[in-house]
Amino acid sequence: MTQAPSPRQRQPLPQDLAGALAALLGERFSTAAAVCEHHGRDESLYDPVAPDAVVFARSQDEISAILRLCHQHRVPVIPYGSGSSLEGHLLAVQGGISLDVSQMDQVLEFRPEDLSITVQPGITRKALNEYLRASGLFFPIDPGADASLGGMCATRASGTNAVRYGTMRENVLGLTAVLADGRVLPTGSRAKKSSAGYDLARLFIGSEGTLGVISEITLKLHPQPEAISAAVCSFASVDEAVRTVIETIQMGVPVARAELVDALAIGALNRHFKLSLNEAPTLFLEFHGNASSVAEQAETVQGLAAGNGGSGFQWATQQEERNRLWSARHNALFAFLQLKPGCRASSTDVCVPLSRLAECVAGTEQDLRQSSIPAPIFGHVGDGNFHVCLLLDPDNPAEVEEAERLNRAIVQRALAVGGTCTGEHGVGLHKMDFLLEEHGLVAIDTMRAIKQALDPLNLMNPGKIFR
Amino acid sequence: MTQAPSPRQRQPLPQDLAGALAALLGERFSTAAAVCEHHGRDESLYDPVAPDAVVFARSQDEISAILRLCHQHRVPVIPYGSGSSLEGHLLAVQGGISLDVSQMDQVLEFRPEDLSITVQPGITRKALNEYLRASGLFFPIDPGADASLGGMCATRASGTNAVRYGTMRENVLGLTAVLADGRVLPTGSRAKKSSAGYDLARLFIGSEGTLGVISEITLKLHPQPEAISAAVCSFASVDEAVRTVIETIQMGVPVARAELVDALAIGALNRHFKLSLNEAPTLFLEFHGNASSVAEQAETVQGLAAGNGGSGFQWATQQEERNRLWSARHNALFAFLQLKPGCRASSTDVCVPLSRLAECVAGTEQDLRQSSIPAPIFGHVGDGNFHVCLLLDPDNPAEVEEAERLNRAIVQRALAVGGTCTGEHGVGLHKMDFLLEEHGLVAIDTMRAIKQALDPLNLMNPGKIFR
Repeated sequence: MTQAPSPRQRQPLPQDLAGALAALLGERFSTAAAVCEHHGRDESLYDPVAPDAVVFARSQDEISAILRLCHQHRVPVIPYGSGSSLEGHLLAVQGGISLDVSQMDQVLEFRPEDLSITVQPGITRKALNEYLRASGLFFPIDPGADASLGGMCATRASGTNAVRYGTMRENVLGLTAVLADGRVLPTGSRAKKSSAGYDLARLFIGSEGTLGVISEITLKLHPQPEAISAAVCSFASVDEAVRTVIETIQMGVPVARAELVDALAIGALNRHFKLSLNEAPTLFLEFHGNASSVAEQAETVQGLAAGNGGSGFQWATQQEERNRLWSARHNALFAFLQLKPGCRASSTDVCVPLSRLAECVAGTEQDLRQSSIPAPIFGHVGDGNFHVCLLLDPDNPAEVEEAERLNRAIVQRALAVGGTCTGEHGVGLHKMDFLLEEHGLVAIDTMRAIKQALDPLNLMNPGKIFR
Repeated sequence: MTQAPSPRQRQPLPQDLAGALAALLGERFSTAAAVCEHHGRDESLYDPVAPDAVVFARSQDEISAILRLCHQHRVPVIPYGSGSSLEGHLLAVQGGISLDVSQMDQVLEFRPEDLSITVQPGITRKALNEYLRASGLFFPIDPGADASLGGMCATRASGTNAVRYGTMRENVLGLTAVLADGRVLPTGSRAKKSSAGYDLARLFIGSEGTLGVISEITLKLHPQPEAISAAVCSFASVDEAVRTVIETIQMGVPVARAELVDALAIGALNRHFKLSLNEAPTLFLEFHGNASSVAEQAETVQGLAAGNGGSGFQWATQQEERNRLWSARHNALFAFLQLKPGCRASSTDVCVPLSRLAECVAGTEQDLRQSSIPAPIFGHVGDGNFHVCLLLDPDNPAEVEEAERLNRAIVQRALAVGGTCTGEHGVGLHKMDFLLEEHGLVAIDTMRAIKQALDPLNLMNPGKIFR
């Protein structure tokens, strides 16, 4: 495993604070080692750094009361949703408490006629769509994990549907956040657009818990498409697959999903999910619309794929077949882990301008050929966003170092072409240096000034995003 | 006319500053009364409040040098694009200089393969689309005026296409701003999405010049649709027209434009543009796609319109006919002004959740029936955004007061249903109280804290958005 930048032993909370939290929350205040340990880790390779205590909030009022108490006692607070972040976001590197909102998982108000819904931050994306299923509406943002909506706001999450529906940035009408001193801050409105003052909602989306705790979210919903069609198509090279996607976007085809999965990844999917896909670089495509528009979109893309040597264009218009394909794509990580028994996965995450995607993927492939680490490439190539899943033995320092080296090369190639060091995972602990490299010191200083303005005591998830 | 909250006489700049600006800019530094007067007004009803001087910048470096000088001398700076703002944004209520970027109107880099373009802030939306015309791409955001892109960022502008393509919020990949002390702040990247730190681009979009001067903008472009179809359809009441739009959106029809124009407005358009539209509440609709999808969308909406008693569904598939209709819609203001010779127009601007739009428009109609001010209703109803064009004699205090009363009633009705006090015009001087009413004190205090963090001397467009 990788040691966090600030490894740290748990320390007892100030006694007054512990007493007040216990009085407020009863058994929902915990200092049990296992509970703390569980809340001090995420899906990154970092060794856990446990918080000193964990609290489970059940309402916005409770969040506010907890923050007021922690503010009085100058104790850091780390918001916790489903624990699925990927860059060390949840590690208690400066101690303090983990504020778990997973019990705040209710729908507060569903307004189907407005295509919007107000939810608590702990509801997960799957639970939300389960709730919506019979309504004819859905919420499209689907990061790999069954993340909480609060966490998805905090990391500006996206996923496979972003190419058509946008990311969390585009799909939140407003949110309420509780500030470090316990004040409740409403942002946005229920209107679809607004020019009323600074865009505080967008400031919190992507703030990774460093500015406050998101306590309520009003989301934009979308009508479930009348018709859906999915296809897979394989190519001789990643380059040709990527070019097909680039041409699709440039032609304005409103493709709903355009996912690349490389040959190594397809092999893993075939074995794990008993599929028989051609073991070659493959696009998973999905089209949303009505019967005729879906057919047209698909025909256009099939033509583009053929022009790039794509073959075996397989259609899945039946829901069952489609679900089987996409479930394999969504659960690819489990298949990847089988490629190297006992390994852990570390996922890179860059996003580049579409025109530079092919060269960035090609450069990455070359890096990987010179590496001993098995590393499938996959990603949301319609957005220029791709991942490499580095499969390594976390107890082997040489492999961990090699993974860091590969990650660095991939990020630096992305930055060199005007891309970003993270398309959807966020900065956390792991990408603080890259953030500086991407935006420069004036930007980091500006972010720091905003942090200082909203959280002058530096209590909200301190030590993340920037130093 | 209406006196600005802080009327003010022009004062000479500190001599050192005037000398330094003259040395830097030559004739592009002006203290001529006419130039200053011109830069101290916008399209609002406020009496002008002239700046003490005007500077015309030609590069980002010049903007930076100007801001450094003004910072040294503690002199306010008001960014100026095309002067088309609507709520008093440009008035020099605390003196200082107007920084005119209209000469910075160049395309810096066009990347058609990425569907993006980097421009200087002074380019106007029409000039931009003229530049793009042969490329097969376009930039969809179209506020009423031929505004500058910098100004459109500053007010988070939108327009008729926003229902399909989003607003400035969704169509800026990144921007560069010069901070009050002259430091240059890059934000965003050229990638389509990013989770790299606080969303500083979105913070500047809608900041109305109060946080810095926008000096470069990277925009998202869209493929020109293969097929476009436009239609007008009239209804017995505004309510039925609005319901048709609500049902269209709820069904997921990707309508590109859905504009309401009331009977009074249609009469004005008929007379001014020699049209022969039915003088009844009317929808102007536009569909983008390919031939078959456009036909399908239109058929669906025609069915919905019929269900709401819509009649006279007129098609305009020929570009010339379409342009004639939309040109009338875009230039409606000139027609409206003819309704009352010598009048000026003051436009309200609220946006409400779609489900509450019909009742808000109905309430507004009732307000207007009890008023002597001619006031056509029109707007981007697909987004829940509508305007009332109050036609009044600016020298008649009773009419000005009546207009204020109507505006207040319209805003308060919007806020009561979860809407916003401004859908696209911004806050400026005119809506500061409404902003507080909409978001509450914690939000205003948070905006103030951010302003203080980025502009501690309060030099950037001071006295706007909040007090």
